[in-house]
Amino acid sequence: MSGLHEECGVFGIFAVEKTDVTGPMFYGLHALQHRGQEGCGMVVADDGVFHDYKDLGLLNEVFVPSVMAKLGQGNMGVGHVRYGTSVTNNRANCQPIVVRHSKGSLAMAYNGNVVNTEELREELEAKGAIFHTTSDTEVMSCIVAMERLHSASIEEAVCKAMYRIKGAYSTVLMSPTKLIALRDENGIRPLCYGQTPTGEYVVASETCALDAVGAKFIRDIEPGEIVVFSKDGIKSIREHCGKRPPSLCVFEYIYFARPDSVVDGCSVHEARVRAGAFLALKDNVEADVVIGVPDSGIDAAIGYARQSGIPYAIGLIKNKYIGRTFIAPEQKTRQDKVKLKLNAVSHVVSGKRVVLVDDSIVRGTTSAVIVKLLRDAGATEVHMRVSAPPFIGCCYYGTDIDNEECLIANRCSMEEMAQVVGVDSLGFLDLTDVGKLANTDKECQYCMGCFTKEYPAEIPADRNKIKYENKYEKKISEKESN
Amino acid sequence: MSGLHEECGVFGIFAVEKTDVTGPMFYGLHALQHRGQEGCGMVVADDGVFHDYKDLGLLNEVFVPSVMAKLGQGNMGVGHVRYGTSVTNNRANCQPIVVRHSKGSLAMAYNGNVVNTEELREELEAKGAIFHTTSDTEVMSCIVAMERLHSASIEEAVCKAMYRIKGAYSTVLMSPTKLIALRDENGIRPLCYGQTPTGEYVVASETCALDAVGAKFIRDIEPGEIVVFSKDGIKSIREHCGKRPPSLCVFEYIYFARPDSVVDGCSVHEARVRAGAFLALKDNVEADVVIGVPDSGIDAAIGYARQSGIPYAIGLIKNKYIGRTFIAPEQKTRQDKVKLKLNAVSHVVSGKRVVLVDDSIVRGTTSAVIVKLLRDAGATEVHMRVSAPPFIGCCYYGTDIDNEECLIANRCSMEEMAQVVGVDSLGFLDLTDVGKLANTDKECQYCMGCFTKEYPAEIPADRNKIKYENKYEKKISEKESN
Amino acid sequence: MSGLHEECGVFGIFAVEKTDVTGPMFYGLHALQHRGQEGCGMVVADDGVFHDYKDLGLLNEVFVPSVMAKLGQGNMGVGHVRYGTSVTNNRANCQPIVVRHSKGSLAMAYNGNVVNTEELREELEAKGAIFHTTSDTEVMSCIVAMERLHSASIEEAVCKAMYRIKGAYSTVLMSPTKLIALRDENGIRPLCYGQTPTGEYVVASETCALDAVGAKFIRDIEPGEIVVFSKDGIKSIREHCGKRPPSLCVFEYIYFARPDSVVDGCSVHEARVRAGAFLALKDNVEADVVIGVPDSGIDAAIGYARQSGIPYAIGLIKNKYIGRTFIAPEQKTRQDKVKLKLNAVSHVVSGKRVVLVDDSIVRGTTSAVIVKLLRDAGATEVHMRVSAPPFIGCCYYGTDIDNEECLIANRCSMEEMAQVVGVDSLGFLDLTDVGKLANTDKECQYCMGCFTKEYPAEIPADRNKIKYENKYEKKISEKESN
Amino acid sequence: MSGLHEECGVFGIFAVEKTDVTGPMFYGLHALQHRGQEGCGMVVADDGVFHDYKDLGLLNEVFVPSVMAKLGQGNMGVGHVRYGTSVTNNRANCQPIVVRHSKGSLAMAYNGNVVNTEELREELEAKGAIFHTTSDTEVMSCIVAMERLHSASIEEAVCKAMYRIKGAYSTVLMSPTKLIALRDENGIRPLCYGQTPTGEYVVASETCALDAVGAKFIRDIEPGEIVVFSKDGIKSIREHCGKRPPSLCVFEYIYFARPDSVVDGCSVHEARVRAGAFLALKDNVEADVVIGVPDSGIDAAIGYARQSGIPYAIGLIKNKYIGRTFIAPEQKTRQDKVKLKLNAVSHVVSGKRVVLVDDSIVRGTTSAVIVKLLRDAGATEVHMRVSAPPFIGCCYYGTDIDNEECLIANRCSMEEMAQVVGVDSLGFLDLTDVGKLANTDKECQYCMGCFTKEYPAEIPADRNKIKYENKYEKKISEKESN
Repeated sequence: MSGLHEECGVFGIFAVEKTDVTGPMFYGLHALQHRGQEGCGMVVADDGVFHDYKDLGLLNEVFVPSVMAKLGQGNMGVGHVRYGTSVTNNRANCQPIVVRHSKGSLAMAYNGNVVNTEELREELEAKGAIFHTTSDTEVMSCIVAMERLHSASIEEAVCKAMYRIKGAYSTVLMSPTKLIALRDENGIRPLCYGQTPTGEYVVASETCALDAVGAKFIRDIEPGEIVVFSKDGIKSIREHCGKRPPSLCVFEYIYFARPDSVVDGCSVHEARVRAGAFLALKDNVEADVVIGVPDSGIDAAIGYARQSGIPYAIGLIKNKYIGRTFIAPEQKTRQDKVKLKLNAVSHVVSGKRVVLVDDSIVRGTTSAVIVKLLRDAGATEVHMRVSAPPFIGCCYYGTDIDNEECLIANRCSMEEMAQVVGVDSLGFLDLTDVGKLANTDKECQYCMGCFTKEYPAEIPADRNKIKYENKYEKKISEKESN
Repeated sequence: MSGLHEECGVFGIFAVEKTDVTGPMFYGLHALQHRGQEGCGMVVADDGVFHDYKDLGLLNEVFVPSVMAKLGQGNMGVGHVRYGTSVTNNRANCQPIVVRHSKGSLAMAYNGNVVNTEELREELEAKGAIFHTTSDTEVMSCIVAMERLHSASIEEAVCKAMYRIKGAYSTVLMSPTKLIALRDENGIRPLCYGQTPTGEYVVASETCALDAVGAKFIRDIEPGEIVVFSKDGIKSIREHCGKRPPSLCVFEYIYFARPDSVVDGCSVHEARVRAGAFLALKDNVEADVVIGVPDSGIDAAIGYARQSGIPYAIGLIKNKYIGRTFIAPEQKTRQDKVKLKLNAVSHVVSGKRVVLVDDSIVRGTTSAVIVKLLRDAGATEVHMRVSAPPFIGCCYYGTDIDNEECLIANRCSMEEMAQVVGVDSLGFLDLTDVGKLANTDKECQYCMGCFTKEYPAEIPADRNKIKYENKYEKKISEKESN
Repeated sequence: MSGLHEECGVFGIFAVEKTDVTGPMFYGLHALQHRGQEGCGMVVADDGVFHDYKDLGLLNEVFVPSVMAKLGQGNMGVGHVRYGTSVTNNRANCQPIVVRHSKGSLAMAYNGNVVNTEELREELEAKGAIFHTTSDTEVMSCIVAMERLHSASIEEAVCKAMYRIKGAYSTVLMSPTKLIALRDENGIRPLCYGQTPTGEYVVASETCALDAVGAKFIRDIEPGEIVVFSKDGIKSIREHCGKRPPSLCVFEYIYFARPDSVVDGCSVHEARVRAGAFLALKDNVEADVVIGVPDSGIDAAIGYARQSGIPYAIGLIKNKYIGRTFIAPEQKTRQDKVKLKLNAVSHVVSGKRVVLVDDSIVRGTTSAVIVKLLRDAGATEVHMRVSAPPFIGCCYYGTDIDNEECLIANRCSMEEMAQVVGVDSLGFLDLTDVGKLANTDKECQYCMGCFTKEYPAEIPADRNKIKYENKYEKKISEKESN
Repeated sequence: MSGLHEECGVFGIFAVEKTDVTGPMFYGLHALQHRGQEGCGMVVADDGVFHDYKDLGLLNEVFVPSVMAKLGQGNMGVGHVRYGTSVTNNRANCQPIVVRHSKGSLAMAYNGNVVNTEELREELEAKGAIFHTTSDTEVMSCIVAMERLHSASIEEAVCKAMYRIKGAYSTVLMSPTKLIALRDENGIRPLCYGQTPTGEYVVASETCALDAVGAKFIRDIEPGEIVVFSKDGIKSIREHCGKRPPSLCVFEYIYFARPDSVVDGCSVHEARVRAGAFLALKDNVEADVVIGVPDSGIDAAIGYARQSGIPYAIGLIKNKYIGRTFIAPEQKTRQDKVKLKLNAVSHVVSGKRVVLVDDSIVRGTTSAVIVKLLRDAGATEVHMRVSAPPFIGCCYYGTDIDNEECLIANRCSMEEMAQVVGVDSLGFLDLTDVGKLANTDKECQYCMGCFTKEYPAEIPADRNKIKYENKYEKKISEKESN
């Protein structure tokens, strides 16, 4: 219930012969819909000719039967689901992007955020390039196309381009004959591949998308790795591997990824249960019942309950008929939207001391409404436990934690936060426990920038990406002097 | 995950002065959306003038801001959410129905099923009545209008009409000055009322709708009771009370109602937890983990886990982006639709002996797919427990269990069922335990017709309601002789 | 360019065997689209079972291929196109209406206006009838259904009903086995029938609809006549014929009907050309060019030019991309809407003395804008000639001339009108010439109520039908006393 | 009724201060809707920041009030209406195109066809350029952006670009501070400008768009001329003027332009009337009535009637409710679509010898249906006269006469054509008269390539543009060798 958003999910498929690649892409992207609900797109390659479609909306709103039929069959495809900020939320910025360059066509989709887009764009414009969108993908495509002029192959061009592109980018791209998957040197966003029973290779942001098409997981793409799928088989290019410490975004475990996915070797569900257990281990609150905020606080609540011995129960019911396009009648406050979504089960919490587990507190307003729901339903005490450390820093690598001033932990002490949220006690996951989420024997290296303000990769020169896009429009107009 | 459908939810509101009754109706009906997703409607009374709107679709698809604005303010309202079979699924059959009769207007919405519609219609037609729809509501309205000719008040007309209308009908209706709520003599479908902090009375199928508008629950309407809300206050007419044994549909506890509702004095969540406990009490299976089929098997799974001591876990993840209008690409079988919705959490079930709890088995096909998902994810044993007895009879009172031949329990022995579903063992709730779901000290009386084929109220002369509606079209054409 | 609106067009088809009746109904109604653009509907009878669909919108917006496919084939059908005032413009008031009564189903559609609806409705309500709509058609259906109880056949019931229904009603109706067409005793609205090359009988408001389905015109239905199409052939019931003088609405010739139709024996195009000639005959204006306001002033302009010897030309071009749903950006005045539609051909009018022919002046505002367009394009003189007498009275028989105060001729003298419109001279058709429009040898009898305030049939007790509908809502609520 | 299609209309506006430029653009483009009904777009410049919107559909379908509001106010704008072939008919190919380059943003829209797109694209790709679409506009934008790198101003870049771009291109483009209008050296497509009463400059394909926004016509842009509108006033660059003979497409007079427009100094209506007169001058057919095929044959029919002395009449009525999206039910042939659109006025043609005037015959099928309509309505003789010479060549400059084999004049002799169309006699405009259409004293120079196969400008290397686009997709994929 964090209100945070991942900015993308990607899917790619490679078949030796023409077959139904569109159906599996639909199912795979559908399993990744939690990574982006604002827009989606697919490109199908049929013997080198690309057919594409993309629009704002959920997968089943955009890819209606008539559109699916138009895309038809093919031997490769790349697809994308997208979360977009309101500023950039238009069709033109949807992915995948398809461009034609000197050596043929190129389709590209990625998950993450390129931090040096502005610099790259200026450099390209100085050579006469024109741009249609403000998207990173268009700039990345142009860099690849430029490198392709002096490269022997598309993968060589991609490998050269990676020296110039900074930030987080788990990418799938497609030339007329090859499907290529790559991960930035830090491996900030997940990416893996597998194989279907009928032999197609599939690349996806999460394993749940492999499951959705019946594919067997083969392995994660490594940080810095380029994997090329072609008629000649699979080839791995490791020129960028090992150059930087692996730094998967730890919030993939805490919130973004689906619990049934396995990311970089660790079950997301298990990581969340373990987060709950860590919270309970350092806790000595006396309570009657442990409940989770649906859906993302449920796993950690079970972990807390198991470790503490306090019974787990369902204390909050979520109304499942609130979709992306739900408009509450009249100008109701944010508070009311939460009430529209959640209701307390009074027989579970009435007269009880409740441990309430959620995955994060951003502004504190949502949590305050939930706590009030529980108290109104008769809870005598509410002890809130958060399965992550407090947010203090922006994310520059593809999520929308973008404004440090809004973060409650930057404005309040722990006591003040408890008061704002209205709880009897408040606890967060220790930073030292974050590294143990995936595996208890050895500590893993993660990107924890939003908890520490220490970033494993470059950050943008202009730190505020969203404002930048608006200013950019203005700025380029000012350059025109005569 | 039963695939069964309730056929309706109703909501009514009465305010002394003109105010925003449309907003609360929206929120109330939204909380009842699980009782019907095919269509919805609202009628607002503004000083005796009725404004209405109804259409196929979810509440937020139909009641977009422009429609809400048109309905405007008023001092009363009745609303409805509807599940309709494909045959009857058109706008004309949506509720509430609004008619004009000799003494003014009448708006009516109900939940249930009238079993003697055909007889009543023929009687009315013989007096020259014309009908626009095949809906029970139109016939009920006509009966009330006829009785109104010789009655001193609308409530007197309603009371007389109840002698003639047979079956299940929890109804809200509205004259230009009064809101009336009533329940059939058996009280087969739930109905209750409460009051908002600002004084409006609200009537609803379930208490979760009262919560949604911040109303305090006052009491359930009793079987056979008529409650009249007017400027003179609340009046109860009990002429039909006590004539028949109370017979709430027990499936309201097991599946239909929302877990956060309290129906006829018992928490739905508690009843489900108790069902799980009853299953565990008579069981001696050895297992490593208990999981529930989301969403309706979760509560019983927790009950089973608590009673048995086997750990509860989340073994199945539901994709929440499959709405009412979701169309899977290409002709995929029913089996695939389930896979699109559910995925197993392999780290939870792999190498484990799993107890799988669900609320019902209708045809067995859905359960078989779920069990296969678990086995493919590595479950070594699957023991299925169902929190209801096996279905053997049709329901004539407002749900769509309408074809005895399709019910697996009518075709297979317990062993055969286990084989069809593919489980190592299979268990159902005992009939003798059903009566104890709501309360452990005394047994309650319920309608359990679908488990016993013994029905507390009349059943239709022609038992197959759906087929009847088709035949009716044909039949009336044959009557025309010259 | 009068801005007046006819309120309906009807179409019926009868085939002995099941065939494609839906296609011809579509084409026939499409040819009648000028008689109503707000809504449309069709009912198809297939062996006595009725399938219907109706909605707001143009024919090709409502009857999309999927809807056409659902309606399917049959042996009879009735259809309707509708113009509705904003007050009554909702789906429920669309036609045809389909009802079920004691002897089967009944589908009905009509063109005109019943003037004693209120009295009939009250009488029926007093017997317990309920009404869903405020439409005349529902009341007419109920009267027919009541009469059917004591009649040997549907046509006998219709014949009895005609004694009770007052006003203008050219009607097609359908029982499970018969198609019936009838015209009120005055024959105010047109109705005719013909036969297709494949033998189907078709009934339509105008002959252009017969042409559209390749049907040969047989004859007009006479005022008061009932024509029954059944497997036994065609039967005419003339019990109501000759009771009143025939009184076709003369505005059918002047504006409503399509120029390619022949109404009650006279070509509409010819009648309009003749109107232009009559205008020229009494005129002695010196001018250089005659132009018509498209589309309805063109025919009369040609007639004027021929008679006067002044050359005819095209001086105004109409933008054909302004449809029913066109919304001009921003709050532009009515004046601008006209400019959006029309532009002057400056080379035709510049430096010229122009005779401008239109079919009517209602408020005068539209005409003023057109005259200004011509003057801005360089016309030195503008002489306006109107192919009808000035409007002074309401129409109670199915058009929307409903407010005497708005009519410019009730507020201004001829000189003042010329000043308001901005013309150098202004002329109208003489009342004495109106009777000669259809035929030069003998004068015909017409309804000319809007020019004379003398009405051939009853007029409503409450003269303002539209206001009545609003008041009605209120009134029925007041009747409710307890 | 030719079934031919122009491929575009353009509109531009320049205001010194921020104002409502979106409203006038809407009205101006709406007046140009006849030049393209498949898609439309607008870009508004507000202090150098561009806001754009484009989509498939008519202007009032795409620019609904909410979209208009989003575009808001500004100080400049360019807009476009588009006809697209089915192959290229997608949103991405709509205009205007907006790109960002080294010196700011650029918005561009044009009418015509660039014949060396393929060569230009290959040249640009070889420098690393990427392309998103197959549109000429993107290539033109890229050429301008490249030239801009080494130019002192945007107009200098445009002037250099014109040396490289071959074919027909009447263009409006916009930098952050300037609006620029230009016409290719032949001036094949029209373009003019004027000024509104409030001082804004407007550029448009036809003068009817100036009329629509109340602007006074100033002058036509000359072939080869570049006109720059900026805060410093208007500047004309004539470097490309006079390099080639002016060669306006003569079909603009005959069919494409609106009759109320004045193109390159000649009234379109007058030119058409004159075409009719030329036809009559060389004719000696005896007939009773002259009729035109609506809408484009009407003006020439009047000219024929005036010259010949045979009376003009309205013999064909067009159903005005057939829009762009009209779908006739069931698989009806092309022939039926014509009948759905047109009906004969039998009283006008019955028993008469008819002269039928139309603007062109392409395949002959449409004309054959019209002639049959007239004969079925009783015409005793039909003499068809066409206000243009026979088509024998493709058009490479922006219309869809694209397949020489389909043209009836390439397959049949004059006698055979008359037989195919079913007329008693058939006449075309003489080639020698075409040059006199605009002006009787001196012959004008036109592009008459479709009548002579002699083209005033370059034609494409690969003559079949449409096939090229498909092949292109394939070809670029083949280039990818490794």
